[in-house]
Amino acid sequence: MKQHRSVVSLSDQFRALVSSAVWNASAAALVIAASGACGSAAGADEGMWLLNQAPAAALTQRHAFEPSPEWLTHVQRSAVRYGGGGSASLVSADGLVLTNHHVALDGIEKLSTGERNLVRDGFVAKTREEELAIPGAECSILWQIEDVTDRVRGAAKSGLDPAAAEAARRAEISAIEAEARERLGLPRCEVVTLYGGARFHLYASKRFTDVRLVWAPEDQIGSFGGDHDNFEYPRFAIDASLVRLYENGQPYKPEHFLKWNTQGSKEGDLVFVVGHPGRTSRLFTPSHVAFLRDVELPGRLAGTYRSEVRDLIFAGRSEENERLIQGELSGVQNGRKFMMHLLGNLQDPVLMERKRADAASLEAGASEATRAALHAANAQVDASLKEFREIYPAWSAMNPRSDLFAIALGIDRMTAELAKPSGERLREYRDAVLPSARLRLLSPAPLDAGVESHLIELQLSLLAERLGGDDPTVRRMLAGKPPRDRAREVVAGTRLMTVAAREALLDGGPAAVAASDDPAIVLARHLNAAWRPLRDRFDARVEAPQRAAYAAIADARFDVLGEWVYPDATGTLRLSFGTIRGYQNPGEPAAPAFTTLGGLFARSEEKGGRPPFDLPPRWLERRDKIDPTTPLNLVCDADIIGGNSGSPLVDREGRLVGLIFDGNLEFMATDVVYPGGNGRALAVDSRAITHVLRTIYDAPHLADELEAGGK
Amino acid sequence: MKQHRSVVSLSDQFRALVSSAVWNASAAALVIAASGACGSAAGADEGMWLLNQAPAAALTQRHAFEPSPEWLTHVQRSAVRYGGGGSASLVSADGLVLTNHHVALDGIEKLSTGERNLVRDGFVAKTREEELAIPGAECSILWQIEDVTDRVRGAAKSGLDPAAAEAARRAEISAIEAEARERLGLPRCEVVTLYGGARFHLYASKRFTDVRLVWAPEDQIGSFGGDHDNFEYPRFAIDASLVRLYENGQPYKPEHFLKWNTQGSKEGDLVFVVGHPGRTSRLFTPSHVAFLRDVELPGRLAGTYRSEVRDLIFAGRSEENERLIQGELSGVQNGRKFMMHLLGNLQDPVLMERKRADAASLEAGASEATRAALHAANAQVDASLKEFREIYPAWSAMNPRSDLFAIALGIDRMTAELAKPSGERLREYRDAVLPSARLRLLSPAPLDAGVESHLIELQLSLLAERLGGDDPTVRRMLAGKPPRDRAREVVAGTRLMTVAAREALLDGGPAAVAASDDPAIVLARHLNAAWRPLRDRFDARVEAPQRAAYAAIADARFDVLGEWVYPDATGTLRLSFGTIRGYQNPGEPAAPAFTTLGGLFARSEEKGGRPPFDLPPRWLERRDKIDPTTPLNLVCDADIIGGNSGSPLVDREGRLVGLIFDGNLEFMATDVVYPGGNGRALAVDSRAITHVLRTIYDAPHLADELEAGGK
Repeated sequence: MKQHRSVVSLSDQFRALVSSAVWNASAAALVIAASGACGSAAGADEGMWLLNQAPAAALTQRHAFEPSPEWLTHVQRSAVRYGGGGSASLVSADGLVLTNHHVALDGIEKLSTGERNLVRDGFVAKTREEELAIPGAECSILWQIEDVTDRVRGAAKSGLDPAAAEAARRAEISAIEAEARERLGLPRCEVVTLYGGARFHLYASKRFTDVRLVWAPEDQIGSFGGDHDNFEYPRFAIDASLVRLYENGQPYKPEHFLKWNTQGSKEGDLVFVVGHPGRTSRLFTPSHVAFLRDVELPGRLAGTYRSEVRDLIFAGRSEENERLIQGELSGVQNGRKFMMHLLGNLQDPVLMERKRADAASLEAGASEATRAALHAANAQVDASLKEFREIYPAWSAMNPRSDLFAIALGIDRMTAELAKPSGERLREYRDAVLPSARLRLLSPAPLDAGVESHLIELQLSLLAERLGGDDPTVRRMLAGKPPRDRAREVVAGTRLMTVAAREALLDGGPAAVAASDDPAIVLARHLNAAWRPLRDRFDARVEAPQRAAYAAIADARFDVLGEWVYPDATGTLRLSFGTIRGYQNPGEPAAPAFTTLGGLFARSEEKGGRPPFDLPPRWLERRDKIDPTTPLNLVCDADIIGGNSGSPLVDREGRLVGLIFDGNLEFMATDVVYPGGNGRALAVDSRAITHVLRTIYDAPHLADELEAGGK
Repeated sequence: MKQHRSVVSLSDQFRALVSSAVWNASAAALVIAASGACGSAAGADEGMWLLNQAPAAALTQRHAFEPSPEWLTHVQRSAVRYGGGGSASLVSADGLVLTNHHVALDGIEKLSTGERNLVRDGFVAKTREEELAIPGAECSILWQIEDVTDRVRGAAKSGLDPAAAEAARRAEISAIEAEARERLGLPRCEVVTLYGGARFHLYASKRFTDVRLVWAPEDQIGSFGGDHDNFEYPRFAIDASLVRLYENGQPYKPEHFLKWNTQGSKEGDLVFVVGHPGRTSRLFTPSHVAFLRDVELPGRLAGTYRSEVRDLIFAGRSEENERLIQGELSGVQNGRKFMMHLLGNLQDPVLMERKRADAASLEAGASEATRAALHAANAQVDASLKEFREIYPAWSAMNPRSDLFAIALGIDRMTAELAKPSGERLREYRDAVLPSARLRLLSPAPLDAGVESHLIELQLSLLAERLGGDDPTVRRMLAGKPPRDRAREVVAGTRLMTVAAREALLDGGPAAVAASDDPAIVLARHLNAAWRPLRDRFDARVEAPQRAAYAAIADARFDVLGEWVYPDATGTLRLSFGTIRGYQNPGEPAAPAFTTLGGLFARSEEKGGRPPFDLPPRWLERRDKIDPTTPLNLVCDADIIGGNSGSPLVDREGRLVGLIFDGNLEFMATDVVYPGGNGRALAVDSRAITHVLRTIYDAPHLADELEAGGK
């Protein structure tokens, strides 16, 4: 359940769309969920809750636990957002941050070279001085939340059409964000859209760009079992890494961090997940779910299959290629496996019946006026989907996988947007998020010509497939050459491999970009010229109407079901909860609540030690130092989705007992329903991490630092 | 350049379409080809010629070679069609047949079990008694050819619409075939369509169904370098196997077979390829090539990427799965690599300009009446493509990959068709081809439940993606379950795994099939109900108009360019010719005309002996018995395409000097143009085959039998 680059970047385009949904966790809905296709689950703990709207009643009633305001503040400020789409947490008084190896992988790759392969061999900083600054890294901590719904919704006077109303709200959001930066003195103040546009909250965050790698296991241990075991359980992986936040060149001394529970957890324990679930679409209308099933997911999966095969071919050419593409490829495979199983679940006729029954039951409980509002909103969603379906093939081919091309596109877009006031810009370039956008464009992370050429070739040929070989944009981009030759020419000729050249263009503004003959910029200009009208059409005729429609549906749900509902995931910080418990699928061996380090060795032996079940040499040599009974991975039924990767698993006392890294196959419908039944979130046990730091990695200093907090 | 199962079965649907094209090899066209994107090639020898219309003038002028009628009869009757889409040749007085390992692979797989893995370990029959009958195998030899154009074209009275004219021609064809069977006493008499419907020839063939495996190398040697080296050169593979034809339980004693040239060949030699090129589309109209580039190839590639990833996942689950899916998967990978490079070449703007210039130059040379006919034909093609585009997504999802499901679909279709007279049936069930169709349905080759379930799941989910999850056919086929569960249920419940159950249904006829509750038959009935209207629409509104249009274009070309042109490949026997010669790509090492057995070991060492560059144990043990200077693979510039795999490479004296098995990457535009330039066909040198039979495989008796013919 990695939130990898390609999904993240794709979901940037879809974010507005997918955040335009709302879900309720009322008692009625829970009954529907629990009686659905995934089997009955009396103890199901559903919901990705807002930190400022924690499910106190459910926790008290079901688990006799009352989260205090201090407890909530503590876990909120210990949680870290890692990069654009990952989760993490502060775990020491000196700013150590724990996340998944697969979340940190992009940075680990950037620090690797042909000579020093940190992905394959892992890394331990023996001293603070040895910690390695990760190029282009960014972490943030959500510091405070304010409800600004009245101001934002009030900005759109009644009578405006959806696009004009959306523009008015966007201008107001920009103003609120600018004021908040001034007032709160926090670098990142962002108004987030919740309940599909029915609520707006201001999220103010601390921000860190000096992030250093402290410990990474070998990739082989981080992703033991590879694509084969991904989303499976029982599982045996130490999908964990440590980085440290620095401020002004010194380790950050946080006010809040999670203490390490050295006793760990046990089956039956109540646990919490605090992280950044990327997106759910749980209250899409039935026709919107059908669109996901029949158009969007098949389209995205086709792109993913294509990327996977082409990346495998690229990797097969040399060991160096394999190293360079590994992170990208494992992200693609992860996304493919997730979407494949999600689609398989959506193609279950029973699931669609369940969605329709749920919509019908809401209508049945609604007043006449509310029912009319629901009908109008459903029709508005349908119209937006018709529009989206038309632009989808071209639109979805325009998202760059090449970092180089993404930088060129970004330079062209950002310089154009910065000429306008913040409230009128594309929202990814408004002032609130500008520093992060600039950081991405100026990342000093090295780019490999072979990889970039491979990815640009793939994009050129995809555009030719989708738009047709005679399309004017395609012809301009190809400039008379086949995709492979043109990609090589662009990469060989560009100066954007260096940060200085990018900076010069950004500083030179639109005139400098327009005058540039850099082939990557030329390529970007041609694509942006075709992309911008689609984006405007998407914003005005897909996103805005959907936002209005889902806000209306959310209002209707508040009317019928009351205020006690949670919003769909949107990448913002959430609190989930659940119980640690094993399960049993019919005809299969029981899946225990915990696996062990001994089980890791057994699994490798059972598979003959062949990849992806081989163990690194260090692990084979030191096997006898390991206590085989040490818990390794565990399962709980908390509600998570992609983006939760790296989330801390926290106990009643707010101490860390685990690290979320995956969900099992039964969990794969989580995009549109809480799976219940045997669906489980997977975590690395905190005890395994400190045990291997001491026994395998000669890093007792790190184990001590982690455990010191708990004493 | 394997002609694998999935492409073959897909191309069944497309055969009418793709055979509806015509290409000319006039001097003018040669100039265009030689001056095109693929670089200049003064010595280019273009064309896949009919055996009864050999390019005598070109051979005499360019190579001072005049093929005598006896020479042509000899190579024609020595050539063998292997299965549905492969080539082979008779190479001994006792009926030994040489073909590619990858062509024989399907049969080798069927003879393999978990205990006796002939794919991995290879096979040598030490005696005739040890030769293994291949279940469901079929070979045929084209015995004689008659031109029946006047009778077929005359059957369609003028004034009929294209569909009615097509029906009249089809009835006439069926009558001609029936009469010929009677008159000639040959089991397979088939009227083939040439020049897109401008010419019709009767092909009468001998047919063999007792085909026994004699020798197969380890798959690792047959496909050394795997997907990585496929379509690459220099190359080091012994992609060869031997089978023997039996008649009445005795080895077949052929009147004609190719003698083995023990001296082999050398650079500069004129060589001939006699085989069954599957299809070319060289004279598609420019808009038809654009359709191939923008619709058909991207669609087929998407399906191939999907199959490849899903088969890799299936293979990854166990060694047994890997063994079971290997042939299917390597076929998929082969098709993907071919289509990927073909598409890349078609996306070259220069190629499309070349096609348009070629069409313009034909027009420029035409009379006013001919020009009007060309315009009308172009418009008719365009209209047919619009129609095809509409049915394409559903249509292309209905082709089965599962053998089990193909059998169920075939039983349902065949019983329905047999109720009609031969001339009114779907053409794949007319009397001329009925024995082969029945043989496929009653093949005793074992079916694996896991493989069939995997492939049926993939097809169910593909149908749901293409038609939508709420489509009535999809709902009926899924029967309330997600694709995976439904596929398992069908495979677990069907009785069609046994031949007896299939025979009972075939004998019971339409009533028995309609009454059957066998879940595979139920599934097939639902799909056929949706498939049949599409097929009828395809036949009437895509195929028939295209056939009429391309016949008109062919007539126009005969008018302008004269009669000396070759028709597009259609799977029928053809003669190509060319010269053995190496080449040099800019910035790369020279590619020599020949590689050697010593080079094979060097390549393996250079790649660290890692898969797919590992060598079987027997090869490593016996390395010192090998003469490293023995020629292994060679390249020539004869004109070939998929389906030519297994074709003999023949010298001026009609002796065998090699075995075609692949083309290089520069050859990959061969579908729509003769590549020229550095495009090359690849062959296994005859000397390598006898050398390894003696040194590695302890099979001097086979080497002797091969070489005996040459003495």
